Amino acid sequence: MGSKVQTAITPTRAEDYPEWYQQVISASDLAERSPVRGCMVIKPWGYALWENIVRVMDDMFKETGVRNAYFPLFIPLSFLEKEAEHVEGFATECAVVTHHRLEKGSDGELVPAGELTEPLVVRPTSETIIGDSFAKWVSSYRDLPILINQWANVVRWEMRTRMFLRTSEFLWQEGHTAHATAEEAIERTRQMLDVYARMAEDYLAMPVIKGRKTEAERFPGAVDTLCIEAMMQDRKALQAGTSHFLGQNFARASEIKYQTATESEDYVWTTSWGSSTRLIGGLIMTHGDDDGIILPPKVASAQVVLMPIIRKPEDRESVMGYTNSLAQSLKEKYYHHHKLVVEIDDRNIGGARGWDWIKKGIPLRVEIGPRDIAEDSVFVGRRDKSHKEKVSLKKDQFVAEITSILDEIQGNLFARAAAYAKDHTRVIEDAKEFIDFFTPQDSQKPEIHGGFARAPWCGEQACELKIKENQSVTIRCLPFEQDKVKGSCIGCGKTGTTWAIFAKSY
Amino acid sequence: MGSKVQTAITPTRAEDYPEWYQQVISASDLAERSPVRGCMVIKPWGYALWENIVRVMDDMFKETGVRNAYFPLFIPLSFLEKEAEHVEGFATECAVVTHHRLEKGSDGELVPAGELTEPLVVRPTSETIIGDSFAKWVSSYRDLPILINQWANVVRWEMRTRMFLRTSEFLWQEGHTAHATAEEAIERTRQMLDVYARMAEDYLAMPVIKGRKTEAERFPGAVDTLCIEAMMQDRKALQAGTSHFLGQNFARASEIKYQTATESEDYVWTTSWGSSTRLIGGLIMTHGDDDGIILPPKVASAQVVLMPIIRKPEDRESVMGYTNSLAQSLKEKYYHHHKLVVEIDDRNIGGARGWDWIKKGIPLRVEIGPRDIAEDSVFVGRRDKSHKEKVSLKKDQFVAEITSILDEIQGNLFARAAAYAKDHTRVIEDAKEFIDFFTPQDSQKPEIHGGFARAPWCGEQACELKIKENQSVTIRCLPFEQDKVKGSCIGCGKTGTTWAIFAKSY
Repeated sequence: MGSKVQTAITPTRAEDYPEWYQQVISASDLAERSPVRGCMVIKPWGYALWENIVRVMDDMFKETGVRNAYFPLFIPLSFLEKEAEHVEGFATECAVVTHHRLEKGSDGELVPAGELTEPLVVRPTSETIIGDSFAKWVSSYRDLPILINQWANVVRWEMRTRMFLRTSEFLWQEGHTAHATAEEAIERTRQMLDVYARMAEDYLAMPVIKGRKTEAERFPGAVDTLCIEAMMQDRKALQAGTSHFLGQNFARASEIKYQTATESEDYVWTTSWGSSTRLIGGLIMTHGDDDGIILPPKVASAQVVLMPIIRKPEDRESVMGYTNSLAQSLKEKYYHHHKLVVEIDDRNIGGARGWDWIKKGIPLRVEIGPRDIAEDSVFVGRRDKSHKEKVSLKKDQFVAEITSILDEIQGNLFARAAAYAKDHTRVIEDAKEFIDFFTPQDSQKPEIHGGFARAPWCGEQACELKIKENQSVTIRCLPFEQDKVKGSCIGCGKTGTTWAIFAKSY
Repeated sequence: MGSKVQTAITPTRAEDYPEWYQQVISASDLAERSPVRGCMVIKPWGYALWENIVRVMDDMFKETGVRNAYFPLFIPLSFLEKEAEHVEGFATECAVVTHHRLEKGSDGELVPAGELTEPLVVRPTSETIIGDSFAKWVSSYRDLPILINQWANVVRWEMRTRMFLRTSEFLWQEGHTAHATAEEAIERTRQMLDVYARMAEDYLAMPVIKGRKTEAERFPGAVDTLCIEAMMQDRKALQAGTSHFLGQNFARASEIKYQTATESEDYVWTTSWGSSTRLIGGLIMTHGDDDGIILPPKVASAQVVLMPIIRKPEDRESVMGYTNSLAQSLKEKYYHHHKLVVEIDDRNIGGARGWDWIKKGIPLRVEIGPRDIAEDSVFVGRRDKSHKEKVSLKKDQFVAEITSILDEIQGNLFARAAAYAKDHTRVIEDAKEFIDFFTPQDSQKPEIHGGFARAPWCGEQACELKIKENQSVTIRCLPFEQDKVKGSCIGCGKTGTTWAIFAKSY
């Protein structure tokens, strides 16, 4: 860090938020652009984070009776033709496989050969192919419910991509369930949304608003789409998970019928619900500061890095011995049912070492030098505090208290994010105030605006679309938390029938 | 089971092994064919098995310092042109993406649109795309070694497919490492082979022979390919994992250079190693019997099923109460670092229920009826014994002893498979005996032959290929375990220079 640079990341969030986002990812070593258009390489530090998110969510799914399965990457074109509405909303920008062989062309270069009689689409989502299996698996009410989840890669050909937020290929999970009654499917839709909210708040330390989408924002083909919405530090909303009640629409398209207990025949009621590597984008934008990302301890790729300080060669053995033995004690400890992950960084690169780990967002940095060892102490920096604020702790105390320190960091991150969201969410019942709220104060920074507006809405799509057109603001959700609406619609002035959360969004 | 049917699976292994394989998978509920040519749907019972295999191997990889990452599904055609030998061996039969959009055609049907300027290949393996990243990640010897693994789906367009053994899409892991010296890379190649062998023997209970491939059987582009080979119950060999020393070949193709400690520039030395859902095919063919598959307890999708026997409605409450409480006690127990997985099956479908679980290969079946409860006992069947052989055990004793019973089953499966492999492996030094060994005794069953022949070989490829042509037998590996070769080559009669394992193979 040169003396003029005040922060590890340039530009800062306030200077240029979108560019800060790219820089902070690059500095964190989470991921990098790939030579394939719109795809990314998730590097070990980023993938470990994803593995932790997967593990936590997977456990939650399984607790509710869901089982994992795996369905083909490819979907025959004819399957997509079954569900017209779904396809129009989803599958138009997708990767199409048309050949199954490479041959040497006249110039010796490779050319596609072996044209397929029916092109295959790389799954943008698996409703249709899973529906085909469900139709085989269900014959009687005794076969229901079917509760399936798939962890997989999906592809949606995106023209403008942004790492973790919108990439052509991304990793996700998609849950698909089939039920004998609408009530049970509706309950499941809500249950899985609650899992997402728990994941976001209790693990990613990312406060969310739960609610349902308007018809205009609904998943194509769904009867009802529930979602969780989080506020990023540019005050825009990020949809962090969705859970859809599909009614009997997909069952009809895929012919998933069953014999009821009274021996009549009916279509099943289905749900689907998904979350993706986008959660990592949300995590970065919720907690990151001008020094880099900040990883919530419960999902962090590692919780603590030990940095031995070896200025003289003759110190190496004792310092490394002390460091390794501390690492061993820490690695035996459990933190929320999993063993602590400990990094040792013995590179001799001066202050750049500590900054590397600050940028990577590791919750705890521990320096261990001969003087610390003489006092049986370690020198501890916390990522939720200033990089200058470090404390000396007796080693045994540190080992004994590390999990509560981590919990404190986790709690601080959530509290900070919740305070930010609260500060930038306003109940607005006046049309002029609403327009001002979303108008950038600084024409140099068109991105910066008020945040989330909780305002009355008439319930009409024409009004919603007009607001979108005029203010580039959409209804993120109709929050579950509702009280009586007294005022008039923020858009058209007619009678307000529901509270809605309006925001700019990713 | 009708009185005439002696086994749960028709045909038996002896009657028609390939057909038995298909039937046993279908009866086990592991997987099913998909509507997409050559792809399969891995059902929950099969996927749970894969998840356990992944978990065990992933832990082993990480213990050796390997970290997971994720690379793009698509590979630009130009990348494949870099490594001609590799491509000729691998990438000719592959899925080629040529378009990125679907549009409505004149008849309203969907047609591919948006032709790509450069076609993309769906990864058949990721050497080239990972090499591209490595080239960015490595600049100095201080950046080495790089130890990366990826869990992913890959696609190789197969004309003749067989579930788990050869499917167009399959799940696998591919490890890729880069080193400063050949020695270190060679050591890593061997280390990862040992991980595979440990996985196969200690977890899948599948005995393997470790060795190296001949040049003819080597991975395209590799300097040395190490492998583990297992004997299936039709005495054919299954390659269950390979580990490749790639020398500097791939480093040259991908321009992965580094600055050495002495400030000169050199290419890195790389390795790659892979194993796949094929392991499940190996597990089925190693342990399955004429009643279905048999899952080794350490990787089983579930270890035990509880089957309450409720003949009178008034018994339901007490029997289910007892069953649920037993399930609870069992679920709290650890088996090889993981909690026991317990199924409860309360379907009232008579004997078919027990048979379902026999076919699914669950290690332990427990029946619980009013009479058992009166004696505080359970009635236990083991999948490694005859379905008729069940024992009554005091419930507390069963809970106390279940993990040792499971270990005993695990041990029995390995011992049985090891005995089978031993019985059908013969040291052969006589050419006539060699030919007889591989000639089917029964012309009705051309599949059945001797098994593995350990025989002297001259080391010449022409000789090897002639044996392949005449006997449809290949050298599975040159086993690491070698003693002095005295006899002459089994193929050509010249001086034998090495022992080789000859077999028919999958």
